[in-house]
Amino acid sequence: MADEREQSEAPVEGDYELDEVTFGPVLKAVRAGDTDALAQAFEPLHAADIADLLEQVDTPTRRALVALSGREFDGEILTELDEGLREEVVGVMHPEVLADAVRDLETDDVVDLIEDLDAPHAQAVLGALEAHDRVAVEQSLTYPEESAGRLMQRELVVAPEHWNVGQAIDYLREHDDLPEQFYHVILVDPRMRPVGYVTLGRIMGSPREVPLTDITEESFRTIPAMQDEAEVAYAFNQYHLVSAPVVDEDERLVGVITIDDAVVILEEEHEEDILRLAGVGEGRLSDRVIATTKRRMPWLAVNLVTSILASLVIAQFEATIAQFVALAVLMPIVASMGGNAGTQSLTVAVRSLATKDLTSANVWRVIRREAIVGLINGIVFAVVMGIVGIVWFGMPLLGLVIAAAMVINLFIAGLAGVMIPVALENLDIDPALASGAFVTTVTDVVGFFAFLGLAAMVLL
Amino acid sequence: MADEREQSEAPVEGDYELDEVTFGPVLKAVRAGDTDALAQAFEPLHAADIADLLEQVDTPTRRALVALSGREFDGEILTELDEGLREEVVGVMHPEVLADAVRDLETDDVVDLIEDLDAPHAQAVLGALEAHDRVAVEQSLTYPEESAGRLMQRELVVAPEHWNVGQAIDYLREHDDLPEQFYHVILVDPRMRPVGYVTLGRIMGSPREVPLTDITEESFRTIPAMQDEAEVAYAFNQYHLVSAPVVDEDERLVGVITIDDAVVILEEEHEEDILRLAGVGEGRLSDRVIATTKRRMPWLAVNLVTSILASLVIAQFEATIAQFVALAVLMPIVASMGGNAGTQSLTVAVRSLATKDLTSANVWRVIRREAIVGLINGIVFAVVMGIVGIVWFGMPLLGLVIAAAMVINLFIAGLAGVMIPVALENLDIDPALASGAFVTTVTDVVGFFAFLGLAAMVLL
Repeated sequence: MADEREQSEAPVEGDYELDEVTFGPVLKAVRAGDTDALAQAFEPLHAADIADLLEQVDTPTRRALVALSGREFDGEILTELDEGLREEVVGVMHPEVLADAVRDLETDDVVDLIEDLDAPHAQAVLGALEAHDRVAVEQSLTYPEESAGRLMQRELVVAPEHWNVGQAIDYLREHDDLPEQFYHVILVDPRMRPVGYVTLGRIMGSPREVPLTDITEESFRTIPAMQDEAEVAYAFNQYHLVSAPVVDEDERLVGVITIDDAVVILEEEHEEDILRLAGVGEGRLSDRVIATTKRRMPWLAVNLVTSILASLVIAQFEATIAQFVALAVLMPIVASMGGNAGTQSLTVAVRSLATKDLTSANVWRVIRREAIVGLINGIVFAVVMGIVGIVWFGMPLLGLVIAAAMVINLFIAGLAGVMIPVALENLDIDPALASGAFVTTVTDVVGFFAFLGLAAMVLL
Repeated sequence: MADEREQSEAPVEGDYELDEVTFGPVLKAVRAGDTDALAQAFEPLHAADIADLLEQVDTPTRRALVALSGREFDGEILTELDEGLREEVVGVMHPEVLADAVRDLETDDVVDLIEDLDAPHAQAVLGALEAHDRVAVEQSLTYPEESAGRLMQRELVVAPEHWNVGQAIDYLREHDDLPEQFYHVILVDPRMRPVGYVTLGRIMGSPREVPLTDITEESFRTIPAMQDEAEVAYAFNQYHLVSAPVVDEDERLVGVITIDDAVVILEEEHEEDILRLAGVGEGRLSDRVIATTKRRMPWLAVNLVTSILASLVIAQFEATIAQFVALAVLMPIVASMGGNAGTQSLTVAVRSLATKDLTSANVWRVIRREAIVGLINGIVFAVVMGIVGIVWFGMPLLGLVIAAAMVINLFIAGLAGVMIPVALENLDIDPALASGAFVTTVTDVVGFFAFLGLAAMVLL
């Protein structure tokens, strides 16, 4: 269809980026030390935007802003803030302001906040909560970090499974303590085990006498409280869940996870994947120089070791290179092409492993495909480089050597690009984390060895 | 807090991956050509899982499966299927089965499906729809691809802004044509411009006489129908929207986008970013060999050109290398370290541009930071490599040369890693797409030139 439709217009960008219009009044108020002007400048801004603003200004401005905002500082801003900055911002806040700010948050947001604070700050936050919220937060904290138990909120609406629509409506209408946001009523058996859920829309649209069990959603799934949050996010994404009940080992209802929390985790997982693939730990833009340097150093150290390995291969052929310096000129091309082709394969593999699209059912087919793709691209670029070699250095044999090395290295790159991430995944090591170093080591070593080794055999 | 909590247990993996237990019965039924067994094997599976299964089996099995499933083939499966496979699967389906399958889909899903089909198949799908659905789909198709207009669904619930809770409840209770899934009632003015929305939960929890305008959500935002879908996804993520009304140029309500659609787009954007960073077009695991090869070839061609550029730099120093072959052994290390450091910086920059965390407000601070980080890491690894150079080759001057080249290249890598993506973004070119090639060209050229140039000056 795409070709036939008229498309005179292209979609347009939104203006969600923070710019001078948004920033200006806030910064002006901070510079003037004017609390009222700051409150007014905050007025049209979403907490997420204020958090972004705090991340983007320099440290003195950030502290001045937090100090000046006082009671205007909404707890939501803390929830939205980069984890690395929370401690700093909380440190600047007056304890009473902090207490005010956290009191209105949902329990899952408080848990998320406390995780990143040191003990005194965490205690201050806990102390500010009302008793029943504190109990809920402390219970969530007994679950391991990055588990569904940490992610869930306690605020939920349940109904006995034997109720009908009328009873549910009467209950909801009489109950004046409903959560801020809820989309489903969870049906439970007498032992508090969830057996299904019903959307509010369905309840609204059904006659009073219809049993709730007749209008439950097909998509119903429970999440074990101990489940890894990445798996939770996967389930929400795969099955288009809007909310899901969380259960303990006895299948009893302990909380509910909603899609907005799952989206946050999905984002975090993506961030982790993309940064790990590039050998950048958990870096954030708001990190300081020293933290950033430290975090990147181990990956550069790994790269140094692997590139010394490659150099050791080259060193075996010093005599050959001394005789044909053209080899030194051309050898990085073979290694670079292999590294690139390997990175292509490994990125597709890592991504497919993350989305569970690469499984035991198709792994051999994918490996075969990548190897063939590597081989074909190898042959194409072998011809190109063979010609370049001949034209540039006027040595047909050199052209032949670089062509052969190219085919070998791109074929191996395709193989290694899939097999290494799959092997790491089977060893329970995050393939995004380590595949890059292994794959480029393979393509460097194979590239230099194939090129220089063939040269030594053919040219000498 | 993290250190003090007892954590004897770690979160556990879910079992969402498709395995033999899921696959087995389906494949057995297909091999046996047993329609009833297949229907039974489909029974416990979500459409998304069946779609994954179709993506993971080989082509003959896929076709046999689709043909055999007949009327059991749910339209949802088509919606969940990789775009690259839709045409193939639709091609195998009997026209009547296809008509059945699409009739129950929401209009936004039909639009998404039709986009990927050729004209005859698209016409067949359109022809299968009921008249009012067809009109809705055709209207959506008048918006540009990848716009909010394509993403929205027409099924929505509106109420006049002057209504109170009681009127809304009575309306919802009497209306028997409510959408399958809806979470909000959109308030509109007499000209059908949305002025706010109210969650069903809030309506349930409020007395009948409360005006709806008193209980609208603070998060209310409208989305222009022409807005790019990536921006729509950003808005949902940034502002934690669950649904948002879509409006035309006159601010009139034309549809609604729900979070599940936004999550799909978020996933697609991530996929695009991660694959583009690795120089893999829009590749999917289910693509054929030829399609994959073609898609990767342009990136390898770009890499070939840039690595020939680097080789031209090396060629300028052939005489120097002929005299000190150790240079040929060590030079890939300098280039590789620069490439790695540059990739680290550029990945953080590309990611921050995508999340709108890198803006004109902090760009200079980030550039300065990356340059300093590069400088510090450069100095650290300069010392290490200087020592390696001296120990390995017994030439202190060679150690000095490689150390100096390392500092220069890692400093430049930090600078280029941020400045190149930012420059591309300002030129409206996707920084994920082209940054990698530019940055590694810079680090290769600078690395070889600094190392060999210094060597020529110092050693000769």
